[in-house]
Amino acid sequence: MKRTSIGVRIALSVAVCVSFATRLSADEGMWVFNNLPLGHLKSKYNFEPTSEWSEHLMKSCVRFNVGGSASFVSSSGLVLTNHHVAADTLHKISSEKNNYYSDGFLAKGFEDEIKAPDLELNQLVSIDDVTSRINSAVNEKMTAAEAGDARRAEISKVEKESLDKTGLRSDVVTLYGGGRYHLYRFKRFTDVRLVWAPEAAIAFFGGDADNFEYPRFDLDATIFRVYEDGKPAKIEHFLKWSDNGAAEKELVFVAGNPGRTSRIFTVDALKFQRDKRVPYVMDFLRRREVLLTLFSQRSEENDRRARDELFGVQNSRKAYTGMIQGLQDPAFIAEKEREEKSLIDKLKSNPKTAKFADAWKQVGDAQKRRAEIHGKALNLGTRLVGIAQTLVQMAEEDAKPSEKRLTEFRDSNRPSLEQDLFSPAPIYKDLEQVVLADLIARALEMRGADDELVKKILDGKSPQARAAELVGGSELDTVDARKKLASGGKDGINASKDPLIVLAKLIDADDRNFTKQSEEIEEMERQAYAVISEAMFAEKGESTYPDATFSLRLAFGTVEGYEENGKQLPAWTTMGGAFDHEAAHKAKDPWKLPESWHTHRKNFDAATPLNFVSTADIIGGNSGSPVVNKDLELVGLIFDGNIQSLTSNYFYSDKQSRSTSVHSSAIREALSNIYGADRIASELGK
Amino acid sequence: MKRTSIGVRIALSVAVCVSFATRLSADEGMWVFNNLPLGHLKSKYNFEPTSEWSEHLMKSCVRFNVGGSASFVSSSGLVLTNHHVAADTLHKISSEKNNYYSDGFLAKGFEDEIKAPDLELNQLVSIDDVTSRINSAVNEKMTAAEAGDARRAEISKVEKESLDKTGLRSDVVTLYGGGRYHLYRFKRFTDVRLVWAPEAAIAFFGGDADNFEYPRFDLDATIFRVYEDGKPAKIEHFLKWSDNGAAEKELVFVAGNPGRTSRIFTVDALKFQRDKRVPYVMDFLRRREVLLTLFSQRSEENDRRARDELFGVQNSRKAYTGMIQGLQDPAFIAEKEREEKSLIDKLKSNPKTAKFADAWKQVGDAQKRRAEIHGKALNLGTRLVGIAQTLVQMAEEDAKPSEKRLTEFRDSNRPSLEQDLFSPAPIYKDLEQVVLADLIARALEMRGADDELVKKILDGKSPQARAAELVGGSELDTVDARKKLASGGKDGINASKDPLIVLAKLIDADDRNFTKQSEEIEEMERQAYAVISEAMFAEKGESTYPDATFSLRLAFGTVEGYEENGKQLPAWTTMGGAFDHEAAHKAKDPWKLPESWHTHRKNFDAATPLNFVSTADIIGGNSGSPVVNKDLELVGLIFDGNIQSLTSNYFYSDKQSRSTSVHSSAIREALSNIYGADRIASELGK
Repeated sequence: MKRTSIGVRIALSVAVCVSFATRLSADEGMWVFNNLPLGHLKSKYNFEPTSEWSEHLMKSCVRFNVGGSASFVSSSGLVLTNHHVAADTLHKISSEKNNYYSDGFLAKGFEDEIKAPDLELNQLVSIDDVTSRINSAVNEKMTAAEAGDARRAEISKVEKESLDKTGLRSDVVTLYGGGRYHLYRFKRFTDVRLVWAPEAAIAFFGGDADNFEYPRFDLDATIFRVYEDGKPAKIEHFLKWSDNGAAEKELVFVAGNPGRTSRIFTVDALKFQRDKRVPYVMDFLRRREVLLTLFSQRSEENDRRARDELFGVQNSRKAYTGMIQGLQDPAFIAEKEREEKSLIDKLKSNPKTAKFADAWKQVGDAQKRRAEIHGKALNLGTRLVGIAQTLVQMAEEDAKPSEKRLTEFRDSNRPSLEQDLFSPAPIYKDLEQVVLADLIARALEMRGADDELVKKILDGKSPQARAAELVGGSELDTVDARKKLASGGKDGINASKDPLIVLAKLIDADDRNFTKQSEEIEEMERQAYAVISEAMFAEKGESTYPDATFSLRLAFGTVEGYEENGKQLPAWTTMGGAFDHEAAHKAKDPWKLPESWHTHRKNFDAATPLNFVSTADIIGGNSGSPVVNKDLELVGLIFDGNIQSLTSNYFYSDKQSRSTSVHSSAIREALSNIYGADRIASELGK
Repeated sequence: MKRTSIGVRIALSVAVCVSFATRLSADEGMWVFNNLPLGHLKSKYNFEPTSEWSEHLMKSCVRFNVGGSASFVSSSGLVLTNHHVAADTLHKISSEKNNYYSDGFLAKGFEDEIKAPDLELNQLVSIDDVTSRINSAVNEKMTAAEAGDARRAEISKVEKESLDKTGLRSDVVTLYGGGRYHLYRFKRFTDVRLVWAPEAAIAFFGGDADNFEYPRFDLDATIFRVYEDGKPAKIEHFLKWSDNGAAEKELVFVAGNPGRTSRIFTVDALKFQRDKRVPYVMDFLRRREVLLTLFSQRSEENDRRARDELFGVQNSRKAYTGMIQGLQDPAFIAEKEREEKSLIDKLKSNPKTAKFADAWKQVGDAQKRRAEIHGKALNLGTRLVGIAQTLVQMAEEDAKPSEKRLTEFRDSNRPSLEQDLFSPAPIYKDLEQVVLADLIARALEMRGADDELVKKILDGKSPQARAAELVGGSELDTVDARKKLASGGKDGINASKDPLIVLAKLIDADDRNFTKQSEEIEEMERQAYAVISEAMFAEKGESTYPDATFSLRLAFGTVEGYEENGKQLPAWTTMGGAFDHEAAHKAKDPWKLPESWHTHRKNFDAATPLNFVSTADIIGGNSGSPVVNKDLELVGLIFDGNIQSLTSNYFYSDKQSRSTSVHSSAIREALSNIYGADRIASELGK
């Protein structure tokens, strides 16, 4: 990694000498592409990737900005991702009549490929370290609030300069909790069309019950194609297709965008997560899960409308359940405490570094401030309320220079913002109303009914009556109304009688106040983690990786099963096994295979591997990541982790923790012999 | 009502003169049998029930102590209740092989009737007012804690004297929040056998989705028989059977045991419910609902094991949803505030009554104390932990004289306590373990992981590992182990190595401390509500009813439909309508009628009324209540209220709020023409 020396680091590097060498002997890490674990790969696997190797892999990957990963798998723009990553789009292009999410889809020719209403795919093309420039904007005399403002302004300037110069989407990514700042440039693809999707019944076979379980039998795959100038894009960097996949124990690589990990977190920060944040989020998720389940039960159409959000909520709930189980294990916190104390003691033992030990205290202080504002955020965030808030804030922010604006309103982010804001995807007012009523009721519970803002929001009515009035009276479900308001500036917003615009104005000050407080706390943490990171660098040398930030990372590991409750689980399952799994559950929903699989059962090889597990270090956001071998052939498609991997937000283990993938053979076999998609199968890897 | 004058009341009765006459013009009220609304029935319906009429109805009713109502419907001991009230027993007598809950049951002869493992049915036989005796134990010099102790001791003495004298179960019931104390004597029936139950698919047709909805199509009925000395009991008071049921607009009566209402609550008490208690309970319910749903998904047998609790949790969650919607409506609280202020102003305007206005402040102070201990109770209450806690506390309490013991350990309650403690009903350790792990995790969240008691409970392990150890190592799932510990006294408990006994000892002090604090707050409220009740009596005259207390009450109203969203809903549905309802939902679970209904579709009259609604004032606990006409013929069986009735914890309205019943004709028609149960059908009402 090209790393800018800052004062702290030099002082630390001389002070610390013992390394936690054992911690990285396993296949741990979500590595940035400009600092791959070359030494480890060489020593453990005798493999030395070249810079061409890593550039080709990096440029073969694309990020789905709705929250997922993917890869180019043909020169003609085919993009492979998960069905559950594609689900957002599958739902948006569906209607009561055509349910592409449930029933699947196959475009017979290019002209049948269906354009996604608002997808943005990002291909990472370069990385530059801008740490010193970002840090130079801040000095020690500034308060946390001032430093935060200055830092965000500098980040905005760097992004805007880059955008103006290159025309590429330019994001400064904060790494190591504030230890490093890298400028990532992306090529944007916004004409993205659906080519093929299987039925939900096989893509999500076993449903919520099997989610995060293993053995698993899911064809969680979907294929899109990117277009440029109305034609299939010509893609230079794409992955070749491996029909044999990887052998047991073979080294594989996963390139994708893990969303968020918290491995650098101090003990105080972990305790805040354990005692406040995670329980709070889980209460919120369970509440939404029950609400959406009730809404879904009312009719098949309701079920269709709420399906995507309900899946997301259940998926998160299960992920958080695993996270809190890790946090609540006293042994985990005790080990973290031991490690932390050892490092702090070492820093304190040298007068030159003693003051850096204050960084842990600063993180602790930040957690106290987090606790003060915990649960105070007013969250009325339905899709329509979100649109209203964006319009209201945009009118205000656009009057300022780009670098002074709230992050999402900066020039560098404008194309992505508009892609989302003006999306023609359907908005279901019945569902919006039910969710908003519950969010208003929840605000009333969190703040108390005597809170002045809550009273104004209610306007003397019950949450249900008020939500009906707000959603029913709003026109923001039409793109035209949004475009009109977006172009009308502050005068237009002030003149608007749309009840959701009026609501968004009412809550704007509160929202900004909360954002401001959060940003101050984040700056306190950034400064502290910058110091802590340097201590870690000094401790572990160059071979370390930053926490996940939904930016491109490389993980690696081997294909292998594991032992659970005294039983050895296999490295892979087969397509034939899906039928046994169906029978074991008496073909009851969600263990009912789609008709297509039964119809074509004789046409495909039952021994074809369907899903496999590997030790690669992944987390949510990696869904859709390609799994490749040393020759950069696609051998699999990440779609899940097992239950044991759910603690990997906080630590990695290769004992039982596994990432789960769809096998490349199964995808081709299914395309050719179940879905009649030879047109697509023959394009793969070419 | 025979009412003891106390000083407060005399002072109040001269001071207050305007009455809220309008509030009782509708068919409001859950009336105690020694103070029926005779004037209202006479003036509105020209009906004058005699004392024989009310005695016969009172003695025809039985209470299911698991939480429900029922009635005698034959001289030979037949008892009619809901399938969902019987569910507790249906599950307990079921196994992986025989699922009586799902599949239904019919005893061909007496010898096939299946004994319930732990049911206790109570028939109310007399009511005496003991207010002055209970109040005489308390004086103004006592602190709330002392007064509470003295009052509970006096209650215990009254109960024990009555038990010793009559041999009847004797409970002192607190009415009007502390305004009155009545001694209720019950005949106990503990040999209760299952005679007939339909399939869950028709008893709970529409499942959680249709629960509290209307129109409804449920045969939510089950028939037991009480035995004495091994023979069917000879019953003097039982209800005749009406095959025609009630006509539209006809006056009907509901006699049952509404569980709990909060209509006397002051504004401060309601706000505590709205802002703290109800949201807290709902979080708990949603958490359990998601947990049990996940457990159920794993297998059909898991689903069977968790079914009863999951139904209870979903039912409560839906009920609480309705309650909080009422509380969160600003108009409701505003109206309560107006009423309360008017009454307090009136009291203050007269020097003789001015000091009684302090009662509202005292309730407010009690709410502040409630807020202080809110969420602090350590709840690890699974069935096994509950058994362990009972055994540990019993050993301690039995060393004291009866009146000094915790309420449940008094002599008067001993038979009921042992009926429950030594129940041979199966306990599923896998389910226990999952629930206990979650309760331990929750305790950790509520109190923080650094809480000393929490640390001791965890014993250095994760909640999951600890729960496995506790449940796996305990023998309390066997009745023998429980009996041995119960007979071993304190020495036996102290010597026990059973990990759940050790746990129960560990948390006992904390539990007792919380109980003590709760009791003090309750005494503050009792004293205050005694004064408030007198103000109400003075205001409203004799014609008032106390909040529900799971004791026998009479409600009344007329059979009539209502308007919803501009549509008139019918007073009743039909058996044929169930098939239309099935078709409308494509016969998807939970809208799939059982095979028996399809097989016998041609054998019964599709026009037979199935469910009907009336304006009678009911709430949870009323499930299974007989609905009778003026001639005391059974015309229906309460099983639900509609969505609009869910606010009736706080107020009654006859506009849309309705109680829902199974029609008497449908029960007989189904018995004879679907279930081949002529033996039972011919006994009904005879």
